[in-house]
Amino acid sequence: MTSKITTADHLKEVQASFNEQMDPRLVEILRAAVKHIYAFVEETKLTREEWKAGIDFLTATGQKCDDVRQEFILLSDTLGVSMLVEMLNQLPSDAATDPTVFGPFYVAGAPQFPMGASIAREGNAGEAIVFSGTVRDAAGHPLDHARLDVWQVAPNGLYDVQDPESPPMSYRGVFETGPDGRFEILTTRPVDYQIPTDGPVGQLLHASGRHAWRPAHTHFMVSCPGFKTLITHAFDADSPNLSRDAVFGVRESLIIDMNNGTAVFDLVLDAEGS
Amino acid sequence: MTSKITTADHLKEVQASFNEQMDPRLVEILRAAVKHIYAFVEETKLTREEWKAGIDFLTATGQKCDDVRQEFILLSDTLGVSMLVEMLNQLPSDAATDPTVFGPFYVAGAPQFPMGASIAREGNAGEAIVFSGTVRDAAGHPLDHARLDVWQVAPNGLYDVQDPESPPMSYRGVFETGPDGRFEILTTRPVDYQIPTDGPVGQLLHASGRHAWRPAHTHFMVSCPGFKTLITHAFDADSPNLSRDAVFGVRESLIIDMNNGTAVFDLVLDAEGS
Repeated sequence: MTSKITTADHLKEVQASFNEQMDPRLVEILRAAVKHIYAFVEETKLTREEWKAGIDFLTATGQKCDDVRQEFILLSDTLGVSMLVEMLNQLPSDAATDPTVFGPFYVAGAPQFPMGASIAREGNAGEAIVFSGTVRDAAGHPLDHARLDVWQVAPNGLYDVQDPESPPMSYRGVFETGPDGRFEILTTRPVDYQIPTDGPVGQLLHASGRHAWRPAHTHFMVSCPGFKTLITHAFDADSPNLSRDAVFGVRESLIIDMNNGTAVFDLVLDAEGS
Repeated sequence: MTSKITTADHLKEVQASFNEQMDPRLVEILRAAVKHIYAFVEETKLTREEWKAGIDFLTATGQKCDDVRQEFILLSDTLGVSMLVEMLNQLPSDAATDPTVFGPFYVAGAPQFPMGASIAREGNAGEAIVFSGTVRDAAGHPLDHARLDVWQVAPNGLYDVQDPESPPMSYRGVFETGPDGRFEILTTRPVDYQIPTDGPVGQLLHASGRHAWRPAHTHFMVSCPGFKTLITHAFDADSPNLSRDAVFGVRESLIIDMNNGTAVFDLVLDAEGS
């Protein structure tokens, strides 16, 4: 606390205030966080009014969250941070299926179905489709007891949790493979949809010239004892938004043909510790 | 969207998605924000669980905010970001009074008082004190029509907006200098207090081995036509927390003697454009 403290002095003082005896990893994260936040503030020469606008934006984002709406995940998704975290955490081998974002619409506890069952809402107006494929290890062996947690948007462009008229757990299901590693899941063809734009994140996208479309996809979370859990999507090759996904989740290897009522999506898991 | 995209490719794709035709400054800020967020995520090798804990923390911080509680400003203050923004924005000359943080407890529209009036709550149990000094320009000339917006904590350690039993606008007042630049303000001696710890920021401080004390101080926002507005505090030299301010706002030049019922705090403003 000398009279004319530099910004570098200030950073050191703040970093030193965290006590690594308490929780070394938390303190490591906090020290890195302040370093990178300060670098951002200094590089942009952020004004007090812009700082205040940022505070107001973060506040509004937090206040938009409720039991079924997670505006901070939406922010992380649309800034590509969620995808980055998946890239750094899943680190697939060349043989394994590419991962992509988890998204904010997963619901734990979806019903388990026998192979070949339908997760579609009864009486829907969608295009019926059968997902099928084999879950394998990196050497090509089929995986027994692979658990597929599958979820997707309804033909009206809404997830069940976004649609007050939808029964809960529509378009969600859990399936388990047998010794042949095969799966077969009846559903409707996923549709392109816009992420929710009635909140602060939607305003930010609009103000920065971005759109809110996601290319049609079905979510897969695939786990199997001894293997790394895979979080990915199957994307519809006919989507007009493949090259401009609002959350930057598209990978060429995940784009499949969904015409003629069939969609073949083979999956490869990496072994744990690989 | 090739099969194996690097994190650098990913950053470029996300930065390119913002359209600088819309709002060049917003896009500049967003592109810098994602760059620095990504550097933070990569440096810390943030896990998915840690990322989720961060999302939960930001959400709780936003949800703690209401009309009188601004938990994101508290977060910014305790990470030293608010102080950094003031350092970069106020950029005082060597002659000018050092700035410090604005804090979350300012209320616009405080009553204007004649010079020498008291801003203390009636019937208070505090130690009476008279702030006095002269507002000058960098060359030492007294400033006429300098407006001092002054606010501080009550003797019970709470600002009026934190205390349901306090009348509004207690310990707040606006004063205007005459041609001699002099001011005289009656109040009670400020006390050390803890910033609010009953929210996510308090939990973060606790988990990282930090305390929540601020050294006793009185806030001054001083403006005058033709001069840069100064945001600062006068700190009590007797405070035991001067070397460990929870928001890193202390500057030696702002520490003054508050014993014997007097506190002399001379103020120097920089000219606009200087």
